[in-house]
Amino acid sequence: MLNFNYRIPTEVFFGEGQLKVLGNQIRRYGSKLLLVYGGGSIKKMGLYANVIELLQSADIPFWELSGVEPNPRVTSVRKGIDLCRKNEIDFILAVGGGSTIDCAKIIAAGFYYSSDPWDLMIGKAKIEKALPLGTILTLAATGSEMDPMAVISNPETHQKVGIGHPSLSPVFSILDPTYTFSVPKNQTAAGTADIMSHVFESYFSKTRSAFLQSRLAEGILKTCIRYGPQAMENPEDYEARANLMWASSLAINGLLSYGKERKWTVHPIEHELSAYYDITHGVGLAVLTPHWMEYVLSEQTVDTFKEYGVNVWGLNPQDNAFAAARQAIAKTREFFVSLGLPTSLHEINIPEDKLEVMARAATKSGPLGEFRPVNAEDVLQILRAAL
Amino acid sequence: MLNFNYRIPTEVFFGEGQLKVLGNQIRRYGSKLLLVYGGGSIKKMGLYANVIELLQSADIPFWELSGVEPNPRVTSVRKGIDLCRKNEIDFILAVGGGSTIDCAKIIAAGFYYSSDPWDLMIGKAKIEKALPLGTILTLAATGSEMDPMAVISNPETHQKVGIGHPSLSPVFSILDPTYTFSVPKNQTAAGTADIMSHVFESYFSKTRSAFLQSRLAEGILKTCIRYGPQAMENPEDYEARANLMWASSLAINGLLSYGKERKWTVHPIEHELSAYYDITHGVGLAVLTPHWMEYVLSEQTVDTFKEYGVNVWGLNPQDNAFAAARQAIAKTREFFVSLGLPTSLHEINIPEDKLEVMARAATKSGPLGEFRPVNAEDVLQILRAAL
Repeated sequence: MLNFNYRIPTEVFFGEGQLKVLGNQIRRYGSKLLLVYGGGSIKKMGLYANVIELLQSADIPFWELSGVEPNPRVTSVRKGIDLCRKNEIDFILAVGGGSTIDCAKIIAAGFYYSSDPWDLMIGKAKIEKALPLGTILTLAATGSEMDPMAVISNPETHQKVGIGHPSLSPVFSILDPTYTFSVPKNQTAAGTADIMSHVFESYFSKTRSAFLQSRLAEGILKTCIRYGPQAMENPEDYEARANLMWASSLAINGLLSYGKERKWTVHPIEHELSAYYDITHGVGLAVLTPHWMEYVLSEQTVDTFKEYGVNVWGLNPQDNAFAAARQAIAKTREFFVSLGLPTSLHEINIPEDKLEVMARAATKSGPLGEFRPVNAEDVLQILRAAL
Repeated sequence: MLNFNYRIPTEVFFGEGQLKVLGNQIRRYGSKLLLVYGGGSIKKMGLYANVIELLQSADIPFWELSGVEPNPRVTSVRKGIDLCRKNEIDFILAVGGGSTIDCAKIIAAGFYYSSDPWDLMIGKAKIEKALPLGTILTLAATGSEMDPMAVISNPETHQKVGIGHPSLSPVFSILDPTYTFSVPKNQTAAGTADIMSHVFESYFSKTRSAFLQSRLAEGILKTCIRYGPQAMENPEDYEARANLMWASSLAINGLLSYGKERKWTVHPIEHELSAYYDITHGVGLAVLTPHWMEYVLSEQTVDTFKEYGVNVWGLNPQDNAFAAARQAIAKTREFFVSLGLPTSLHEINIPEDKLEVMARAATKSGPLGEFRPVNAEDVLQILRAAL
């Protein structure tokens, strides 16, 4: 197990009806608020009206930034920062899924940076601090509600970049599973794939001595496998939505990666797909994951794949290692197919022509991952296999 | 899944050599320090000298409270509070296992209470706030390094009482597995039983909809089962000590119990044993646990026991539920025996004569637990079965 510093500062208010804490929580941190949200879904489900009513009854003045995109753009971030500066806003409330929360995070950090916020994403400037941020989650997927990371897109430059800083952790998050009852089937499926991919990124690691973390990871995978299909079949199944929601937070808040190296592989490759083609992140991950698994399966990695197969998919521990590993990968693909997710790039209308460009872009800072590091040529082969 | 508010504020510095953060961490919270420790083990292993050197080189004035007992007594708490008041101490550093940390916690809270600190334990007065507290852990067992709980004994009244308050959570804990290399075999075994018992207390719950939490719990149990024996066989096995140490913190910091009722059974019964006979807490738990399991096994609880057997002990999911449940309980007992732990009260010299008194005392605030609530008569039967 590698050394680590554990710090998960976000307070979580989990369960039906927890919205009632909103006024008191906001007042702990700020007095003037920017409300950030995406499309109309929070209005349709009545959540928007409830939030407004609570803000008004708590006498908290607020301004609104709406229309944050599914792959949130730096243009929205800029708008948000302007609103904060003009109105001396000191607290940000994100209501939505990971895209809305990520956008709010970079607004919060960009507020303290005098030039263009895109500089913070590409390393031209460093995040120093951020406005306090609270979230009300409406989609179980990215885990942004409990982590210090944000991913922002710049369509002009075809870049989608992730960044992390301790000040980006929300100070509180309200997780009410009933707010995900209206998430459509395809988004429920993509969210489940996203959660599983977060788990895979730290589960498939060379650091096998972090035994405990791997067992926790398997628990979260089993949760996704049980409740993803259940939530799709019955969108108002509270137990399913609650387990998926909590899984989304725990998959990426650090719990699974503490004590291991944190070098991801599939996410950075997928970021290139969605930077160029604006596809749903979880869908891209579902396409890439089994192909990546097949590509990195080797003498060095086979035991971890077998362990995954035995502990998560109930395969026979007596099976031959490679046979079990291949079966585990096949089970993973079958599961995504059962959720209605695509398994190839052509199903999501991604042609061959930009694969090389994307493979180079994904690896421009060096090989990805530590389980089996992949360079540009490896990524290209994974992408070609996924065609 | 029940509603919950997640808040785990303790920062953890995990791994070999993390002691280096000590000076900076203390200075974040205080300027004059009370150093709390138990017997001579921290001196023997050289940790005491290292801590003193770091405090001196950081120019942090400190006073010492040594000799905290294995079942920490209110008399030690009183001494610590006196030292804090006389010397205007504003930070407490506990170096040791759960007993030392628990003692430090009630010193920290008692500092702000004008009368006798025992009042805080028995509910005569309420904890309002506490001095900030840091810990350096030397025993993987109680999880006190990352939770807001403390257990204190009063030998005069034969009482051993646990209490919790958010202000009792350590602000930081340094977890260096090498500090547990010198823990003797019997204490390693008792610590492993204590960790497992914390997991059992929330795992065996009526709230079966908290599926994710139960899977995480199984991961921690598997970790104990793998590494408990390994650490006993080779006390300087870093991987084993590291996994046990992190398991001890995660077993009781809230992660496993969020979303479930928190009504414990075996711990309060054991507290009566160690209040009267001053035995090692983990030893008492190892004796009681299998007897409690056998007593509460029924039509209502059998499925959870089977699940435990299948997921933790690798039993066949096709087995008959009661057969699997009984096998799981037998495996639990065999495991404790393999660690050299006793299975009956007479092995630890506890006779029959006070069983009734203890059964009544354990249930004086009502039945224990929610999985299968037990009243005084039930507890008496469990204790008699354990004779």
